[in-house]
Amino acid sequence: MSKQPLYVIKIGGNVIDDAEKLSAFIRAFAAINGHKILVHGGGKLATRLAEQLGIEQQVVDGRRITDTETLRVVTMVYAGYVNKTLVAQLQAAGSNAIGLTGADGNAILAHKRQHPAIDYGFVGDIDSVNAAWLHSLLREQIDIVMAPITHDAHGQLLNTNADTIAQEIAVALSEYYTVDLIYCFEKPGVLSNAADESSVIGQIDPNSYLRLREEKLIFAGMIPKLDNAFRALEKGVRQVMIGKAEELSLVIERKSGTAIVPHT
Amino acid sequence: MSKQPLYVIKIGGNVIDDAEKLSAFIRAFAAINGHKILVHGGGKLATRLAEQLGIEQQVVDGRRITDTETLRVVTMVYAGYVNKTLVAQLQAAGSNAIGLTGADGNAILAHKRQHPAIDYGFVGDIDSVNAAWLHSLLREQIDIVMAPITHDAHGQLLNTNADTIAQEIAVALSEYYTVDLIYCFEKPGVLSNAADESSVIGQIDPNSYLRLREEKLIFAGMIPKLDNAFRALEKGVRQVMIGKAEELSLVIERKSGTAIVPHT
Repeated sequence: MSKQPLYVIKIGGNVIDDAEKLSAFIRAFAAINGHKILVHGGGKLATRLAEQLGIEQQVVDGRRITDTETLRVVTMVYAGYVNKTLVAQLQAAGSNAIGLTGADGNAILAHKRQHPAIDYGFVGDIDSVNAAWLHSLLREQIDIVMAPITHDAHGQLLNTNADTIAQEIAVALSEYYTVDLIYCFEKPGVLSNAADESSVIGQIDPNSYLRLREEKLIFAGMIPKLDNAFRALEKGVRQVMIGKAEELSLVIERKSGTAIVPHT
Repeated sequence: MSKQPLYVIKIGGNVIDDAEKLSAFIRAFAAINGHKILVHGGGKLATRLAEQLGIEQQVVDGRRITDTETLRVVTMVYAGYVNKTLVAQLQAAGSNAIGLTGADGNAILAHKRQHPAIDYGFVGDIDSVNAAWLHSLLREQIDIVMAPITHDAHGQLLNTNADTIAQEIAVALSEYYTVDLIYCFEKPGVLSNAADESSVIGQIDPNSYLRLREEKLIFAGMIPKLDNAFRALEKGVRQVMIGKAEELSLVIERKSGTAIVPHT
């Protein structure tokens, strides 16, 4: 029997901050016919709340150093406000959503990051995804909304990168489903000219990726995302799409965005 | 076939604010052999955060007037920080907990309170509990941790009294289980002398309740709690216990606290 499709979709803070974009995204997500998981960030809201509370924020290599106070802020914003706002809006749009963190049902087990030079604080690196349990929820026609908070099974919550969570969930669920992993961001796809939104590269495979990098047609910030995408493909994910949140329906149909695919 | 037991246990903010009490409670809750649901408040933390953010709080008849900013605060604190801290600690103690609000899986449907004179803002009164779904989670040996936030199925989250949520869940789940509803608070039970913690009344039935009220041996703040307890009994709950969170194991065995029971 062939596996059923599953869409693992990641949205960033820029979608969450914009009521109009979010509303378009919610409708498109709810309209997906079949199994789906939404992974969200929520960066700016957490930064704003930390500022209001006078908690100094330190970011090293794009990662927020997470002290006790900052962990409290991101838990409140990600697992509380953002997650439950998304769940309520999805319920209204006809998606039977439930919101989770990695602590709930031991969905994502992680450990506190160990780094020889930098103390990231309560930042978690993922050990395992409880794919069997997530599968049992999906089977009941439940849509999962995952906040970027995990736990270490010893009572400690951990702040974890949402892109990585999406990737790890997509890989783990490949055991049960044919998984498409979709990264929604503010651009319409991977661009060959960062200044020109019409320069979307429709498809990238490992060979063309090598070429694009050699010709320096891919800007630096995109490289870790694409490296991650190819790792997900190697581990069983069918394809990775990168596109605009408001165009989710088109991205899913490959009429918009960039498809990252295995050797063709 | 006789129904299996289910414990619906409500804890208030005073337990959550006290690390030692909370830790004792978590161990006792995790140790309960069988199905269980935890309903929590989190009052003081929300009040403190609102103060820090300069959001004025207004309380009328014990209910927090919930404007947009206050709803954001209680969603962050209750559904985010408190709920996920409890879930992580329960997971560490061996309970396979998941944290929910009423929006998740449409667990608790509510409507915005309509009042002729007072605008309570985003305060929700409960319409229905999705007992079938909660039952399906409990059947999988999942322990449910419910935050006092509900939704109206039109995308609006609502702030809802935790005592009432515990009662409505207990009543609704009586269809599937023999339910004990347990209110944990700072006193060791219902006292016949408010100043004397050793004056716990071991058992109250409707007749003795009438007598105690006539003799003015029950202080005013307790009356709505007890009225609610008797209503729960009328609707199928087996017994209601009122006792100390740290003594949960004893309360469950009726070795501590007050048992509210039907006509004996």
